[in-house]
Amino acid sequence: MVIFLAQQNYHIGNFESNTDKIIAAIATAKQQGADLIVFSELAVCGYPPRDFLEFNDFIDKGLECIERIRLVADTIGVLVGCPSRNPKPQGKNLFNSAFLLHENEIKGIAHKSLLPNYDIFDEYRYFEPAFDWQVMEFKGMKLAVTICEDIWNLTDDPMYRFSPMDELIKQSPDVMINLSASPFDYVNAESRKGIVQQNVLKYKLPMLYCNTVGSQTEIVFDGGSMAMDANGNIITQLPCFTEALQPVVLKDNGALVGAITCPAPLVPRVQTMPLQFEPTKSIDQVHQALLTGIRDYFGKMGFKKAIVASSGGIDSALVLALACQALGAENVTALLLPSQFSTDHSVNDAVELSKNLGNPYHIIGIKEIFEQFETALSPVFGDLPFNVAEENLQSRIRGALVMAMSNKFGTILLNTSNKSELATGYGTLYGDMAGGLGVLGDLYKEQVYALSRYINRNGTIIPVNIIEKAPSAELRPGQKDSDSLPEYAILDAILYLYIERRLGPKEIIAMGHDPALVARILKLVNTNEYKRNQFCPIIRVSPKSFGIGRRIPIVGKYLA
Amino acid sequence: MVIFLAQQNYHIGNFESNTDKIIAAIATAKQQGADLIVFSELAVCGYPPRDFLEFNDFIDKGLECIERIRLVADTIGVLVGCPSRNPKPQGKNLFNSAFLLHENEIKGIAHKSLLPNYDIFDEYRYFEPAFDWQVMEFKGMKLAVTICEDIWNLTDDPMYRFSPMDELIKQSPDVMINLSASPFDYVNAESRKGIVQQNVLKYKLPMLYCNTVGSQTEIVFDGGSMAMDANGNIITQLPCFTEALQPVVLKDNGALVGAITCPAPLVPRVQTMPLQFEPTKSIDQVHQALLTGIRDYFGKMGFKKAIVASSGGIDSALVLALACQALGAENVTALLLPSQFSTDHSVNDAVELSKNLGNPYHIIGIKEIFEQFETALSPVFGDLPFNVAEENLQSRIRGALVMAMSNKFGTILLNTSNKSELATGYGTLYGDMAGGLGVLGDLYKEQVYALSRYINRNGTIIPVNIIEKAPSAELRPGQKDSDSLPEYAILDAILYLYIERRLGPKEIIAMGHDPALVARILKLVNTNEYKRNQFCPIIRVSPKSFGIGRRIPIVGKYLA
Repeated sequence: MVIFLAQQNYHIGNFESNTDKIIAAIATAKQQGADLIVFSELAVCGYPPRDFLEFNDFIDKGLECIERIRLVADTIGVLVGCPSRNPKPQGKNLFNSAFLLHENEIKGIAHKSLLPNYDIFDEYRYFEPAFDWQVMEFKGMKLAVTICEDIWNLTDDPMYRFSPMDELIKQSPDVMINLSASPFDYVNAESRKGIVQQNVLKYKLPMLYCNTVGSQTEIVFDGGSMAMDANGNIITQLPCFTEALQPVVLKDNGALVGAITCPAPLVPRVQTMPLQFEPTKSIDQVHQALLTGIRDYFGKMGFKKAIVASSGGIDSALVLALACQALGAENVTALLLPSQFSTDHSVNDAVELSKNLGNPYHIIGIKEIFEQFETALSPVFGDLPFNVAEENLQSRIRGALVMAMSNKFGTILLNTSNKSELATGYGTLYGDMAGGLGVLGDLYKEQVYALSRYINRNGTIIPVNIIEKAPSAELRPGQKDSDSLPEYAILDAILYLYIERRLGPKEIIAMGHDPALVARILKLVNTNEYKRNQFCPIIRVSPKSFGIGRRIPIVGKYLA
Repeated sequence: MVIFLAQQNYHIGNFESNTDKIIAAIATAKQQGADLIVFSELAVCGYPPRDFLEFNDFIDKGLECIERIRLVADTIGVLVGCPSRNPKPQGKNLFNSAFLLHENEIKGIAHKSLLPNYDIFDEYRYFEPAFDWQVMEFKGMKLAVTICEDIWNLTDDPMYRFSPMDELIKQSPDVMINLSASPFDYVNAESRKGIVQQNVLKYKLPMLYCNTVGSQTEIVFDGGSMAMDANGNIITQLPCFTEALQPVVLKDNGALVGAITCPAPLVPRVQTMPLQFEPTKSIDQVHQALLTGIRDYFGKMGFKKAIVASSGGIDSALVLALACQALGAENVTALLLPSQFSTDHSVNDAVELSKNLGNPYHIIGIKEIFEQFETALSPVFGDLPFNVAEENLQSRIRGALVMAMSNKFGTILLNTSNKSELATGYGTLYGDMAGGLGVLGDLYKEQVYALSRYINRNGTIIPVNIIEKAPSAELRPGQKDSDSLPEYAILDAILYLYIERRLGPKEIIAMGHDPALVARILKLVNTNEYKRNQFCPIIRVSPKSFGIGRRIPIVGKYLA
């Protein structure tokens, strides 16, 4: 039996385009002799559809697409994800389902049992979990069809109460097929291989694993769909961060033959989050994820052009480099906005960067505008000394200038704040915190350095001086980040323990960190929740990004 | 048996202050002869604690407070809510629990079964539902203790699969006691009485219902705790939107005697959301909720003073009036920021308003700053015509000025955007969308008018001209809202059907609305998700507010 894995990039709620893409892949696979083609979880509507699922109309549209696909599923079988209605009066009114379409009929429906409801996931908000399971008969084979999390019950995470595969195995299936929408983060990509392998070894069956690819606002899906034989060898591995359609042959004896056979060594165990911060971890994949995040945000929002406030610092330099790689240098404008406190090298470095990248740039000084604000405010401010009000004002003048450019030329402002700054509130709301997409918001400063060096791996793109100089916001004479913040290596290590690992102050101090410093940093994180609450979506690359996956009360007093 | 209901206002994560407050109420109740005192759901840590629950340290701190309370629960019994750990290895690792403390011991623990996971609620993210139930013995009485949603299973909402009270009733309890954290909205306050009544009538038992009060960022709790006898009469009703401690006597025969007996007529049915938008619905309660929301946000954030950009329009006038009522006029500064497009009456109306309210105000013209921006941008903008870029720029100059004031004087900027504007994207990011708290973000424009008239019910506070003139953003000569938006009465009616009632375009058109207008409005709502995503917390007064309770994909293409 020839089975195709269709790893595709969908657009949430864009039923017509998603279905067109699905039908095109069916046609290609059929032409190449496919018996069955497998798509990913909720392929028809895109994942995650979030509260769109609360609209009856949205569910109707999905089911109408299933009807369209049914009409082309003639001699070829199609396994495709789509929300369906729960016919029973008890429980939530929807299932997260996989439809088997064949001979122009719906031959089977499987519903997801293990509904993730942590971090960025809210599936229990919408879906009823399945409590009965049936293998699907297809051309003499029994398919054990599960959806994403359904196969993750093998970890020792206590939140799993049962295993759908434990039930399905009783019906003697020939193969396991999993439809996923499993997001990228620098831990998950490896975990996933381990999970698939643990399943094939436990159930002594091959598995076809089909994941989605592409980004949906903040969530990046890396794909990495695969076929694994019952011995735990990867028989076919689809590429990461790109669409792909690949066949695998399932023999009657359960053996798998891949179009590209690439046996892999056994993955020793499921990867877990590193105990300590590792700035260079999976930096090549992080790079790909950020490019995907930028490219898809623009593509799906219907924009082509970006603008970046280029300060001569490392954060904006890295964002500019990434944007040029993702969108093409001709589509990325740099705006240099020096103030009276900007050093000459800042402008020179930013100009050199744009020359290296080949992207257009403009220089607009903000000194005169700032002075006009000072004049206007002087009747109220009187003789009060220069302080954070004036520092933030400069940042907000820059914000207003880049947004004026964005409005005038129809470009999206890319934000350059990094995770260390966002965590500690070292940024100005409506100033340097402005923008449509947070490119570096899930990278601590040490990761910003690591990725900048990675960008320069084949030759200097980001000028060395930008990487090596001491970081500064340049909002007052001689200002350095280190005036207000501890050294980034220490700061990042503590932030990682608090944010990613969710350790409390006692536990962090017990790991050898200075108690006063820990208290100071954790208080900064907590009291700046109100700023992050107004921040744009961040491209997620870690297991715990600021944004929809981290929900902290704003007026909370904990640890503050 | 004398039972006190303690309706208190907690601060999330402020264990020490919450526990001090609980212990003080215990002392007062004991002095007044109480046998038992009942506090609300998760009283010890405040509700909702959200991802703070993922910190072991946070759970430890709650349990330490239970230990503190246990030491004072000697002859008096105490029922108090606190998270507890699930000792079993299966399932989530926490319960949402109620502790019965008496004779300095933990005499019983009840866990919540029905975990809300819709709108603003995420309880299934953290808690394991309880599947076994035991009445608690206390001084010869059997208490059926449930937590909030546990008693809401009587509606025909299919999401409830079972009823904890159906199980508890088998153990012949003498009284039902419910610990709640049930938020205010203009539907819920009435629904709650109906739910309590349906329970007492079904189980033929009296119920003591203790709700929390006060606001937690966006969520307002109105209290309204009550005791209801087995016939459905309200025996004691605690006041709304304020802390209270009141006794009720439970006789051995199950009769309830209230300190204030106020029998109420039977509530005919559970209230549901109105089918059509009703701008004046519960406007007095909405008023109280907004005052609570402002007051507690400032109190819990540790701020006293507010600033409002006062344009002479109705939205800013209403916010200014509410802020003066909530915080005191001396604590609220109005900033009047006329441009070259502002009409004379705008400034005059805004001045008259502040004179009526007695709050300080300043006038700062923005014309010169705007011109300086134009000069700076002219090398890039060239001869391109005045458009939305220049309109937004004026709004952002105002944003920068009020934020400079906010930073210089340590005040919080109150945002004045209403729900109709936020829905349609009729506002400028980092301009009039700036601010720490969205006071009117859950009120459609017609509700803004209704509440303004309500504010003026005993005499003119908001000048009549402000209420009666045609609304305008005044960002270009002669601009009116009606140039860009349909008449507010029609706009609000359609928005309500889409946002609150979650009807799709077909259903809204079937109700008699113009198809082209419906398509235009729904597209505006969908394509402006990215703006709302960066908006500040909104004081929630409706069953569906923008913010944490409404989760729509930003790059989604549905209906757009």
